[in-house]
Amino acid sequence: MSVAFADRLIEGVRRTGSPLCVGLDPFPERMPTLFGDAANDPAAVLKFSAALIEIAAKHAAVIKPQLGLFEQFGERGYAVARLACEQARDAGMLVILDAKRGDIGTTAEGYARATLGARPGFDADCVTVNAYMGLDTLAPFLALAERDAKAVAVLVRTSNPGARDIQDLDVGGAPVWRRLAEMLSPMGERLKGASGWSGLMAVAGATYPEEARALREAMPDALFLVPGYGAQGASASDAVAGFVTTRYGREGGVVNSSRAVSYPAGAETAKTMAEWRALITDALIAAKNELKAACAP
Amino acid sequence: MSVAFADRLIEGVRRTGSPLCVGLDPFPERMPTLFGDAANDPAAVLKFSAALIEIAAKHAAVIKPQLGLFEQFGERGYAVARLACEQARDAGMLVILDAKRGDIGTTAEGYARATLGARPGFDADCVTVNAYMGLDTLAPFLALAERDAKAVAVLVRTSNPGARDIQDLDVGGAPVWRRLAEMLSPMGERLKGASGWSGLMAVAGATYPEEARALREAMPDALFLVPGYGAQGASASDAVAGFVTTRYGREGGVVNSSRAVSYPAGAETAKTMAEWRALITDALIAAKNELKAACAP
Repeated sequence: MSVAFADRLIEGVRRTGSPLCVGLDPFPERMPTLFGDAANDPAAVLKFSAALIEIAAKHAAVIKPQLGLFEQFGERGYAVARLACEQARDAGMLVILDAKRGDIGTTAEGYARATLGARPGFDADCVTVNAYMGLDTLAPFLALAERDAKAVAVLVRTSNPGARDIQDLDVGGAPVWRRLAEMLSPMGERLKGASGWSGLMAVAGATYPEEARALREAMPDALFLVPGYGAQGASASDAVAGFVTTRYGREGGVVNSSRAVSYPAGAETAKTMAEWRALITDALIAAKNELKAACAP
Repeated sequence: MSVAFADRLIEGVRRTGSPLCVGLDPFPERMPTLFGDAANDPAAVLKFSAALIEIAAKHAAVIKPQLGLFEQFGERGYAVARLACEQARDAGMLVILDAKRGDIGTTAEGYARATLGARPGFDADCVTVNAYMGLDTLAPFLALAERDAKAVAVLVRTSNPGARDIQDLDVGGAPVWRRLAEMLSPMGERLKGASGWSGLMAVAGATYPEEARALREAMPDALFLVPGYGAQGASASDAVAGFVTTRYGREGGVVNSSRAVSYPAGAETAKTMAEWRALITDALIAAKNELKAACAP
């Protein structure tokens, strides 16, 4: 695992031909009964995750489990999330654990171990973090990431309507998120790979493409994790607005799709695993190809 | 559970005579071997938590488990945290789960259920949250809190040195944290109790007493959760700087102490439970009385 996360991510994107990141979001009420009674039995969530990962690994390099949706099942859901991370890694995928943690000192160390650390941690390749409490709160995550060739994705400009409340407050002519980006950029040096990209990633909502371009100016080397594509309303070209043109096409991060690829129309009422697999495969291929086209050289 | 959290907290503070909140922070390397091998066995953490809660319930109305320090033990640590919340409630304490969660839409709903919701959730009385992503991200927490007479503590001005990086950025003459406080204040109406205090709490670091006073101006009704007292260097009078004078003395929140009360000098090498209990009791009484004196009418 001595190859930098940034290089592994870029290699995976080139290999699959697409920056698609598959969101693993367990919604019990949308999960086909094929997998069991998800509302009451986290084992059904594990079956669903395993089945989704098996197909996703053929079409995408990266998976993003949404930890909050596992935690709603309590400690068993937390355990299922860890097992899902293990399965995804075994299937050759990079795991971005969407945990949005953020705390100070020894607690931040605890969260860093819990997410990036080996068992009993999730052993994720990357974890999402919230920097509101300050740059010192990132240190334990960055230290573990540097040691193990992993990554940290900092929430900079998110994709929800309320993102403007704090992130867009004007600080002497630039929004808060831009000031954060400027502080983060030099910190990314230590997670930089041979590709020139850094594993100090920025979460950059696809619903605001003009912000993504401005964020790229502030963080030229950071890989972007782009949420908001698909179900949240952003187009493929909006989603890659913060990518840059290289000889391989537009590159610079991954674009997440959750609901559109894991709960496509008809999947909820699928009668057989074969039917469900076919729907998921079609949805994944559609998202992969749409993003591939948006990034074509 | 129809009495508002704010009223239950104020009642507890008056009953114990002190705004002390006991931080439940499992540091395996500091835990006496009396409880077992904490570094490798989360059962030792459960024993430690149970023993601490038993004593803490006699001297403080509120306990604050630090979830990140439980999560470092993986899913078993997560389960131990839930059991500790249950024990603390059974002992009559109010539980502020220090989880610092923050996410959008359905994921925020997941975190709200996981923390404030009944089993398999933690069923905490209050949860700490991070509002960087926007006010919409607070909605699911506030909805559950309102329904169940619980509370939400928003990170406003934290106690760490890096707090200045984002929180202190100047937005047209006032820092980001003050703008956040102004937006939060009217939202607290729905969690207001008969006491006049609101369960939309603000985390207000004790290491910055002048900020605490300014925060009180911006959020006159919000109960404060004050970290940073004791081991982090703030004095008792600094810690209650944001409280207001009432006929019961200075009131307006709780002041957390973690290390000073759960790992006092000598406790780590205690040879017997009786010796450990005596040290913990002394430390709790000292913190309780110091805060009591700082709040005396």
